[in-house]
Amino acid sequence: MKTKIAVANGDGIGPEIMAAVLKIFEACDVQLDYEFVEMGKSYFDAGHSTGMTEKAKETIENLGILFKGPMETPKGKGVKSINVTARKVWNTYANQRDFRSLNGVNTVFSNAGMQINLTIIRENIEDTYGGIEHMLTNDVAVGRRIITRPGSAQVIRYAFEMARRKGLKKLACGHKANIMKLTDGIFLETFYQIAKDYPEIQASDIIVDDLCMKLVAHPEMFQAIVLTNLQGDIVSDLCAGLVGGLGFAPSANIGDNISIFEAVHGTAPDIAGKGIANPTALLLSGISMLRYMGLTNNAASIENALLYTLEQGVHTGDFGNRNTPSVNTEGFANAIIAN
Amino acid sequence: MKTKIAVANGDGIGPEIMAAVLKIFEACDVQLDYEFVEMGKSYFDAGHSTGMTEKAKETIENLGILFKGPMETPKGKGVKSINVTARKVWNTYANQRDFRSLNGVNTVFSNAGMQINLTIIRENIEDTYGGIEHMLTNDVAVGRRIITRPGSAQVIRYAFEMARRKGLKKLACGHKANIMKLTDGIFLETFYQIAKDYPEIQASDIIVDDLCMKLVAHPEMFQAIVLTNLQGDIVSDLCAGLVGGLGFAPSANIGDNISIFEAVHGTAPDIAGKGIANPTALLLSGISMLRYMGLTNNAASIENALLYTLEQGVHTGDFGNRNTPSVNTEGFANAIIAN
Ligand SMILES: CC(C)[C@H](C(=O)O)[C@@H](O)C(=O)O
Ligand SMILES: CC(C)[C@H](C(=O)O)[C@@H](O)C(=O)O
Repeated sequence: MKTKIAVANGDGIGPEIMAAVLKIFEACDVQLDYEFVEMGKSYFDAGHSTGMTEKAKETIENLGILFKGPMETPKGKGVKSINVTARKVWNTYANQRDFRSLNGVNTVFSNAGMQINLTIIRENIEDTYGGIEHMLTNDVAVGRRIITRPGSAQVIRYAFEMARRKGLKKLACGHKANIMKLTDGIFLETFYQIAKDYPEIQASDIIVDDLCMKLVAHPEMFQAIVLTNLQGDIVSDLCAGLVGGLGFAPSANIGDNISIFEAVHGTAPDIAGKGIANPTALLLSGISMLRYMGLTNNAASIENALLYTLEQGVHTGDFGNRNTPSVNTEGFANAIIAN
Repeated sequence: MKTKIAVANGDGIGPEIMAAVLKIFEACDVQLDYEFVEMGKSYFDAGHSTGMTEKAKETIENLGILFKGPMETPKGKGVKSINVTARKVWNTYANQRDFRSLNGVNTVFSNAGMQINLTIIRENIEDTYGGIEHMLTNDVAVGRRIITRPGSAQVIRYAFEMARRKGLKKLACGHKANIMKLTDGIFLETFYQIAKDYPEIQASDIIVDDLCMKLVAHPEMFQAIVLTNLQGDIVSDLCAGLVGGLGFAPSANIGDNISIFEAVHGTAPDIAGKGIANPTALLLSGISMLRYMGLTNNAASIENALLYTLEQGVHTGDFGNRNTPSVNTEGFANAIIAN
């Protein structure tokens, strides 16, 4: 029997890149069934404050896995990011992004011969993402940054488990405990406590500003880094930049009951509907999802086909060699299928 | 009459790099007198909770300018960083760091032919740097992030004035106001209010994670960026990495009454006393100081000599071409003096 997962196309270029990815899945005989759910910008506009219908919420909660395209949150005071809301509502406490140098995707780092292969695990719920802020006077705003031991423990344990599963030799904790002595202090303390259960993994810590300095000079120094929410947000995007941008960055939000695999790049309304968008990030997220669900053979064969396709120099208009013609979304998907 | 400034040698390699810089100043006939003040790790150890003697504090307050080497803050709960304390006590509300590609200092960016010339202005007092934190329960830590309109206004106005003085065409505001809607919200609001007084400078804003992604791929896109304290701390170090590390990053802490020009790299206790440390960051900070004090001819001639020396391939052991012999601190200073 096929396992069923929830799929949300997303806004802008979402539907077309999702179609491309599902076509690749089908061609590889991935044994999944899909239930499409109503979620995204138009559902805000239709009056759903969370950006999804009740039915979508129910479906996702029943199925446990959501595969989602990029989504736009309408601007306006009081409207909360649909991505952030989803993470919080379903307690997906760990955000995992795997960054690696891809042949065919040129950056100053790949041109310098540096091979990047780096996982960022970010705490996904706490920190200033609670949005607890108030105006003390008209001139003074106060925000609260909350870090808890259980919240830290669950993401840190996930990070060590991930490192063990992948056979990594080391895991670093990024933090600013020299300034935020209690909040980042308990995150760091928890990190070293949990590290004791994973003696085969070398645990170390690094102050986040120093980390960023090292990442832009020697990204190959690191294998995996776990951080609190906002620092993890910043470091994740920095790392995306190292390998070519958000178009090449998968994202998985892992919880105990529900997990979300998503493209975190924008919805690119300017090119939406033209069929020229780059589906790579969503495909990479899909590959992570297959692996997470135990469909490791499917994951490996699609991943190999993607890597080989990129290596061949096949590219959509947003990246790759300017001197070779670009293909559209469908052409890109077909090239992967052929491989 | 010579103007007198306060000088604190700093810890570790501090005294030797300070000696090298002052020797260069002397050779260039810089019209300054120096009063050395007692400040640094040993003064903590001697019981001064701020890391400086009363006399040092008085001297600095009288003279208004402090030129300081790197300093070490002893570890331990309750001990506050001497750098952070100094910034707060004297209300040096703007931290300015100028980053530029230097010929002779190789990075993946310079090797790719990218020219970086970028100033980061960081708010230097507010944000989570107030250190207001408490344990709500044994498991829950809460920190307060405070952003004020006057505090934002003074650093943002400084940034626009700096941009005008340097003839820059644009200034960006980095922030995370999509999540920290009130705190970063008022910073961003203040930015656009003040921007109106500088119509010749193109003002824009960018979310800090996106900023970091762009900085590692297209650092030449930016001329100057103003940010709140912690985000500015992270972005400053990222930018230092882009141009070769903290050894090439000057730092100026600007206040209305007192300004501090400092090397922000470490004290490198392992090589202290050997006379082999790289004085470039402290020299660059010194050049900023000369410019700030109106000694623009001195600043320009020392800067040119430094740039030319680096271009010639003269280097201390920590950077530069591994195939050419390195010089020691004194040799480096002498080469600059000769040029
Ligand atoms: C869109 C935004 C709220 C979100 C975040 O800050 O987490 C994004 O930057 C991300 O990393 O997924
Ligand atoms: C040493 C540390 C407290 C300091 C800071 O966080 O401001 C440093 O990183 C800096 O940038 O000067």
